[in-house]
Amino acid sequence: VKHNSAAEWHTPKGFLFSGIHCGVKKKRKDLALFYSNKDCNVSALFTRNAVKAAPVALAQEQLARHGQIRAVVVNSGNANCMTGKRGLADARKMVKAMSKTLGLKAQEVLVSSTGIIGQYMDMKPILAGMKPLALGLSCEALSDAADGIMTTDLFRKISSRKFHILDKEVVITGVAKGAGMIKPDMATMLGYIMTDANITKKALEKALRKTTDLSFNAITVDGDMSTNDTVILMANGEADNRIITGGGRPMEIFQDNLNAVTRELASMIVKDGEGASKFIEVRVHGAKDDRQAKKVAGAIADSLLVKCAVAGGDPNWGRIASSAGASGVRFDPEKMDIKLDGIVFLKAGKASRRINRKSTSVFKGSEVLIEVDLHSGKGKAVFYSCDITKKYITLNSYYTT
Amino acid sequence: VKHNSAAEWHTPKGFLFSGIHCGVKKKRKDLALFYSNKDCNVSALFTRNAVKAAPVALAQEQLARHGQIRAVVVNSGNANCMTGKRGLADARKMVKAMSKTLGLKAQEVLVSSTGIIGQYMDMKPILAGMKPLALGLSCEALSDAADGIMTTDLFRKISSRKFHILDKEVVITGVAKGAGMIKPDMATMLGYIMTDANITKKALEKALRKTTDLSFNAITVDGDMSTNDTVILMANGEADNRIITGGGRPMEIFQDNLNAVTRELASMIVKDGEGASKFIEVRVHGAKDDRQAKKVAGAIADSLLVKCAVAGGDPNWGRIASSAGASGVRFDPEKMDIKLDGIVFLKAGKASRRINRKSTSVFKGSEVLIEVDLHSGKGKAVFYSCDITKKYITLNSYYTT
Repeated sequence: VKHNSAAEWHTPKGFLFSGIHCGVKKKRKDLALFYSNKDCNVSALFTRNAVKAAPVALAQEQLARHGQIRAVVVNSGNANCMTGKRGLADARKMVKAMSKTLGLKAQEVLVSSTGIIGQYMDMKPILAGMKPLALGLSCEALSDAADGIMTTDLFRKISSRKFHILDKEVVITGVAKGAGMIKPDMATMLGYIMTDANITKKALEKALRKTTDLSFNAITVDGDMSTNDTVILMANGEADNRIITGGGRPMEIFQDNLNAVTRELASMIVKDGEGASKFIEVRVHGAKDDRQAKKVAGAIADSLLVKCAVAGGDPNWGRIASSAGASGVRFDPEKMDIKLDGIVFLKAGKASRRINRKSTSVFKGSEVLIEVDLHSGKGKAVFYSCDITKKYITLNSYYTT
Repeated sequence: VKHNSAAEWHTPKGFLFSGIHCGVKKKRKDLALFYSNKDCNVSALFTRNAVKAAPVALAQEQLARHGQIRAVVVNSGNANCMTGKRGLADARKMVKAMSKTLGLKAQEVLVSSTGIIGQYMDMKPILAGMKPLALGLSCEALSDAADGIMTTDLFRKISSRKFHILDKEVVITGVAKGAGMIKPDMATMLGYIMTDANITKKALEKALRKTTDLSFNAITVDGDMSTNDTVILMANGEADNRIITGGGRPMEIFQDNLNAVTRELASMIVKDGEGASKFIEVRVHGAKDDRQAKKVAGAIADSLLVKCAVAGGDPNWGRIASSAGASGVRFDPEKMDIKLDGIVFLKAGKASRRINRKSTSVFKGSEVLIEVDLHSGKGKAVFYSCDITKKYITLNSYYTT
């Protein structure tokens, strides 16, 4: 995957970006800024974890009062979580310093944090970094901003689409960070999606909920999320299209392109799973409804034994059947089909071949496909996952030191 | 842990055991028999997985009709799961052959299987093994029977208690198998508990449900179980005590000793987790009720990042807080305490020390303790888990070949 050439992405009109190193992390960039020249309608989704980081609590408080923002400032290296009142005060300080630097009202700036939990923020470098961060704003610096939000990510994650709504050109551009995807409910996921589309706040909220279900929540199980998870969608209207409301063809076009951006970001997050060597796509068909299909797909995608089997190139479909059965969804195993990389292993509950790695070559490529058909309805869902390797254990046994 | 000396356990009166190698596995014992000279009241719990192995379906069918049994025959090496009608016919053949050999009615014999999923049983060695298995019955052969049910287990699991109910000596003895405990919902757990207590079927059922919640289900999350999980409790009344009904002091004594046996078996299963190097005990206090406490304890015990932290000797309490928060239970993080191996790391939501492995030595022993107090009620629970090591990945990437 190449994500390094600026030529590969479009930036929406009226947005500027910046990313610098201020000193929270040792060497890599640790501050990012996403900025719009004009007021943005905004929609955001946050973690449902009972333990919420200070910036999440603050952003929720701000958005409950004001529906429009101009900028989001992000630090990486420290999650500002489990830091009590002092953490909340630190998040407020970041908002205050950034809004002052940019000449905005405090309510127009949101803050996000990602990194280690339970340590107070080192505010000195962060506050000192606000001015150089603002001075670095440009429409070319998107990759710097994308770098600034990374923690253990191995590559930056940017996706964009340019399309037309009637005669107007519209751009949607998103950046994200992830990693630690082996246990999705513990990985901090941040996503910032910017568009110059002219769209109502209500339509924006609808679009974000829908697209998140198909992307970021299809790599995460059942609302279990980390303490800092945040997805923010900002629209500044600079494309000057006739305003998009919740329905009709313009909304469809917007939604489709938004889905393309978020799905690409989600798959990048999975591909960058700590220590992962293979990208796993789980497709479930024939469930009673989409919700049940997603539950089954999620159970398979989240199964450690399935991940191990993929890592070992081992077509152990019995583990797939068993994790589907453990999902809580009722189905008739005698109707179930299982295909691995397109090869049928189970047909109507009957094994169609003996498992033998020598004779059956599956899970060899860097992208593998697991397909399950329950033959009991029209529900379908896709879930993304990655394998687990020894490298994961090494990475996660020694994170704080 | 020593579990090899026959002198360490008691056997209940009237029970005989046998374990042999018949040829399903290459070398190790693969058939086991638990037998009572007299009719046994029986209570059993089975997997709630939608995909049930043939012997589970058959045992449920048998027990729905008859409340008493005399014997259980177990094979290891093949789970007889996802094997359709042929699998069910094979399970019936095992019952028929064993009951005939023992001179019993078919309804008096149950069968269990554990091992690989999705392959038809090799019935020839199994049927040929029935006679030598029956001939091997003795009250000394408990360890052979315990060996016969093992798959990837590294040591046999036996626990027993001798106690008095009024003037009568009563014995409870259990054997179990587990392994693969890193993702509890995928590990096949088998447990056979035998007692010479005189106890009603109703009291037996109550006792088994209660004890399973405190033991085997405290190493397993939310009813997610493998395709073959089975726990059977048999009581033949040979101790000749006044019959135990559902209440009173005799029932209490019986329950306490049963709990001691099942908790010891459960902890052995965890200690034998594939590739595990450390035994983790998670204690949660101060939840609204016991159910919520168990949910929080289970979420922590099941967190892969927590397991990795323990493996690495890393006191990363932030991961513990986050997995508690992701459990679905609502609580106030500002009240939470976290202790690791007795050392306070979080007090009323405040970090009490900086994480530093050099200055803080925790998770060094082979048994580690994680304590969480939510300070919002009287609910409490204990959950058992083990760490994850690179060895686990190696073991599970190459299971079928």
